[in-house]
Amino acid sequence: MSVKKVVIIGGVALGPKAACRLKRLDPESDVTIIDQDEYISYGGCGIPYFISGDISDVEELMSTSFHKERTPEFFRDSKDVRVRPRTRALSIDRAKKVVRVLDLPTGVEEDLPYDSLVIATGSAANRPPIPGIDLPGVITVTDLHAAITVKNKLSKGEVSRAVIIGAGPIGCEMAEALADLWGIETHIIEMADHVLPGALDHALAETVRVHLEEKGVRLHLGRRVSEIRKKGENGLLEVQVSEEAPIEAQIVIPAVGVHPDSRLAREAGLLVAPSGAIVVNVRLQTSDPNIYAGGDCIEIPNLITGKPVYFPQGSLANRQGRVIGTNLAGGLARFDGTVGSFAIKIFDLSVASVGLTYQAALNNGFDAQSVIVVQADRAHFYPTHDVIYLQLTVDRKTRRILGAQAVGANGDAVTGRINAIGATLLDRATVEAISNLEIAYSPPFASALDIVNAAGNTAENILDGLSRPLRPEEFEKCFLVDESKDCLCLDVREPTEAAPFVKRFGNRWVNIPQDALEKRKDEVPKDKRLLVVCSSGARSYEAVRRLAKAGITNTANVMGGAAMLEKSGILTPEKGEESTG
Amino acid sequence: MSVKKVVIIGGVALGPKAACRLKRLDPESDVTIIDQDEYISYGGCGIPYFISGDISDVEELMSTSFHKERTPEFFRDSKDVRVRPRTRALSIDRAKKVVRVLDLPTGVEEDLPYDSLVIATGSAANRPPIPGIDLPGVITVTDLHAAITVKNKLSKGEVSRAVIIGAGPIGCEMAEALADLWGIETHIIEMADHVLPGALDHALAETVRVHLEEKGVRLHLGRRVSEIRKKGENGLLEVQVSEEAPIEAQIVIPAVGVHPDSRLAREAGLLVAPSGAIVVNVRLQTSDPNIYAGGDCIEIPNLITGKPVYFPQGSLANRQGRVIGTNLAGGLARFDGTVGSFAIKIFDLSVASVGLTYQAALNNGFDAQSVIVVQADRAHFYPTHDVIYLQLTVDRKTRRILGAQAVGANGDAVTGRINAIGATLLDRATVEAISNLEIAYSPPFASALDIVNAAGNTAENILDGLSRPLRPEEFEKCFLVDESKDCLCLDVREPTEAAPFVKRFGNRWVNIPQDALEKRKDEVPKDKRLLVVCSSGARSYEAVRRLAKAGITNTANVMGGAAMLEKSGILTPEKGEESTG
Repeated sequence: MSVKKVVIIGGVALGPKAACRLKRLDPESDVTIIDQDEYISYGGCGIPYFISGDISDVEELMSTSFHKERTPEFFRDSKDVRVRPRTRALSIDRAKKVVRVLDLPTGVEEDLPYDSLVIATGSAANRPPIPGIDLPGVITVTDLHAAITVKNKLSKGEVSRAVIIGAGPIGCEMAEALADLWGIETHIIEMADHVLPGALDHALAETVRVHLEEKGVRLHLGRRVSEIRKKGENGLLEVQVSEEAPIEAQIVIPAVGVHPDSRLAREAGLLVAPSGAIVVNVRLQTSDPNIYAGGDCIEIPNLITGKPVYFPQGSLANRQGRVIGTNLAGGLARFDGTVGSFAIKIFDLSVASVGLTYQAALNNGFDAQSVIVVQADRAHFYPTHDVIYLQLTVDRKTRRILGAQAVGANGDAVTGRINAIGATLLDRATVEAISNLEIAYSPPFASALDIVNAAGNTAENILDGLSRPLRPEEFEKCFLVDESKDCLCLDVREPTEAAPFVKRFGNRWVNIPQDALEKRKDEVPKDKRLLVVCSSGARSYEAVRRLAKAGITNTANVMGGAAMLEKSGILTPEKGEESTG
Repeated sequence: MSVKKVVIIGGVALGPKAACRLKRLDPESDVTIIDQDEYISYGGCGIPYFISGDISDVEELMSTSFHKERTPEFFRDSKDVRVRPRTRALSIDRAKKVVRVLDLPTGVEEDLPYDSLVIATGSAANRPPIPGIDLPGVITVTDLHAAITVKNKLSKGEVSRAVIIGAGPIGCEMAEALADLWGIETHIIEMADHVLPGALDHALAETVRVHLEEKGVRLHLGRRVSEIRKKGENGLLEVQVSEEAPIEAQIVIPAVGVHPDSRLAREAGLLVAPSGAIVVNVRLQTSDPNIYAGGDCIEIPNLITGKPVYFPQGSLANRQGRVIGTNLAGGLARFDGTVGSFAIKIFDLSVASVGLTYQAALNNGFDAQSVIVVQADRAHFYPTHDVIYLQLTVDRKTRRILGAQAVGANGDAVTGRINAIGATLLDRATVEAISNLEIAYSPPFASALDIVNAAGNTAENILDGLSRPLRPEEFEKCFLVDESKDCLCLDVREPTEAAPFVKRFGNRWVNIPQDALEKRKDEVPKDKRLLVVCSSGARSYEAVRRLAKAGITNTANVMGGAAMLEKSGILTPEKGEESTG
């Protein structure tokens, strides 16, 4: 058999992975990676940490764990893979099985023949259609060149104020990078009414908003940038946000997502989805079986909905690269899809998500129910612990778990829980599996009944009709915004905990501790809907059951309790006290 | 329907949980918990932290997360559950459906009638049959009374040296409790040749041994206590360990496991396994359907082997309590078994385990293969990270995952990985599922290819015959103990990394960096078995594949590389340098 020629277009994440895997399985194969950039094989997800200064040199993003820079020479000597940087793929001729490439330094074009081809062209940043988006100083931070440009501006002290367009993951990470070490006044403009709109529902997103604001980031939610203007001659920009006064800034960073770079594939007649993503099968073959594609330029099955999804993640690109490498060598590896695992650190808060948000579940036609639980990440008697805020969404009909999101200060504890729940999604787990999921228990790491189990139990209780939950934003609307006369808050905490709220809300806030409910049941108002609240939602659930026994059933359990109301900025003891001052 | 009477024997973990769950579902039921102790409903797993001083008051172990002590009054007012402490169950009359109880303070006996009964009698500490085991000063720390006794001795300064019998979880936790804050010279005597023998195989256990010794704990492995003697009149004891010189100590703590307390069940004619554990079905009913049992007195299915196992864990007791509560109220909840999740913190090292160890897999007849991988808990370019040492065991025939164990300094990261792998075991996951398992990726929390995926990939490669692994202890035996003339070590790291070992081992330690292997392949010795080593096992795998291409196949890949050899104390650079000094 003659030597197999493989050409890989794209040398960041998936391309090198596929190449190296193939070479380990089939050392005789002839593998060429081309990339139009000079930088290859770097950890793009590390860019915000490079800009923040946490990572000092760009070389660190291009180095192995044993501190070797992944240069073309490294790939040649260590992997026997040929890398041609600054080489652009112009077109694919599928009949002749050649890729037309342009050597950027010399301008010379040539045809590279292939037996198998891998398209790993990745994504390109979305550019919002705003007047002024092309002005100097408006920089989309999608590659190392842009990152270096931004960092140079920062280290020269040229930036005192920045505007970020979009409060998605990149926008939030960039806000931390700019505001934390560099002390730059940072504004984020976001069209949606909450941050991280794709990853979180409103309630948990509000905890992130509160945290960003505590760290000095100025958020403009539900707002659009209508124009970016040049102001004077010294590079200053002026950003027009909805009807607000314009914001002057030295730098504007659009961070409104990315789209698949599928031009080559489309022009070669390969199947491309309406989203612009390349369509592949479980072997990651395109509609031409000699051409594979993976990473940020393809769509993959969402394992919860069964529908294709565009979910560009460096971790998935790496896994897909290995699958392609195996299949190029004649193997039969599969990539079945994604459960949508996601994590982000924003200042001192960590956020993780898997599966669908509540809103996404509704949008996908599920009869969704979500629950929010609040619990320590360790045994509550262990001397140190942090609090986790976790939302679990389930399908009422099938009791299947659809997704989970969590936030908390201890990122490893937060992501650990989400990863465990995520692993059950592969098996279409039901809520009972979560109630009984084994979270390795020892007081320094978990509770005997861990927050994951508590979430499962709470969801079971709601599905079984044992309590009616109230989401924090529903509480806010009904009790604070509408000041509805039809509802009262029944606070079942101890008097000292409830006092500031009783003082603030008067007879709309009734305090009867849970353990006194039996004796004092005559004091419970019977003519109003009772929004039952405690510190986290556990005692209030107990109270709801007690009230039911006494025939009082017009109740709702405020999910996550006062802890969640406070964390999401809806109701804080301080606010309570202030308002009576 | 008349009120349902439920009696629960045992008031620590499962009993209260079952009682409260039942009352929330069926508020009219009449529930009595009896316990012979005065202390009820406490977190027994917190005892080591109470003794160490991390937890100052015993009340904290008996309090809710909202700081209410779980007294009989608390259960009455808050839960409508009757608790009778200091009340011993003497016998069960299943025909009459009564429990004969003795009120310990008054000596009065009475019959408590029941419709349903719950046996939650827990476990009792094993007492090794050693002469002197009943001497004063020999204290088994299984309940709060013993814990208080020990802590009083410590705080009075009566203890300068302690002997712990058994290096299982309790023995290791007690060693930390005594040695860390109190500064007591602590000896552990263990019959097996490594610590935590039930939870870890030899290699990972050795990392724990090294850590314990670094912290000043004196380990006596492969040794037995043959006698404990009184020495003089001031309470001093003398412990005879195998042939060693006797150890004088003020306190001796046996920690050689527990056994189910199933006397009542056996005497009532209920089905009890040869292990002494009560036999239950998935509803947690005993052989008498009116009698439930759960917690540390039952055996449950091991979901990996399908065989019954005795696995006493506070977390499982809590889950089982809820299942029993549901079923007492007429529900149909199930407890299907355990995947054996386990975690422990020992000084600054965290250990987690799920499923079978390699040895247990062999013992259970599996055609087991284990792999060890070593990797950072975050992206390697992220400024801060710790190293995780992870072992994954798979079945060669079915490729099914059988178990995983990990150690590392970052306990949340270690347990998070084990919990994610554990969740896949419910679905009888294969190694491919682990290779592709989604671990939420962001540089502060994981690598793009997380250690979990690396373990899956490594196992796949071995099962597919791409490399032959060598366990650290096999390396130790072949290279260091036997000094076999048939094998050489081929170190494929950079010369600076390899230098101390080349210096120490001379021509038995050959250094050719992985990226120079192609050019220098003529230098590779062809007549010996090559033990290929790098820092973690990744470059050495690459090297094994390169060597295979060159026709050199008598190779073995040292799993976990130099990092694992060093962490487990087999081979350290310091030792290397010392020996040449």
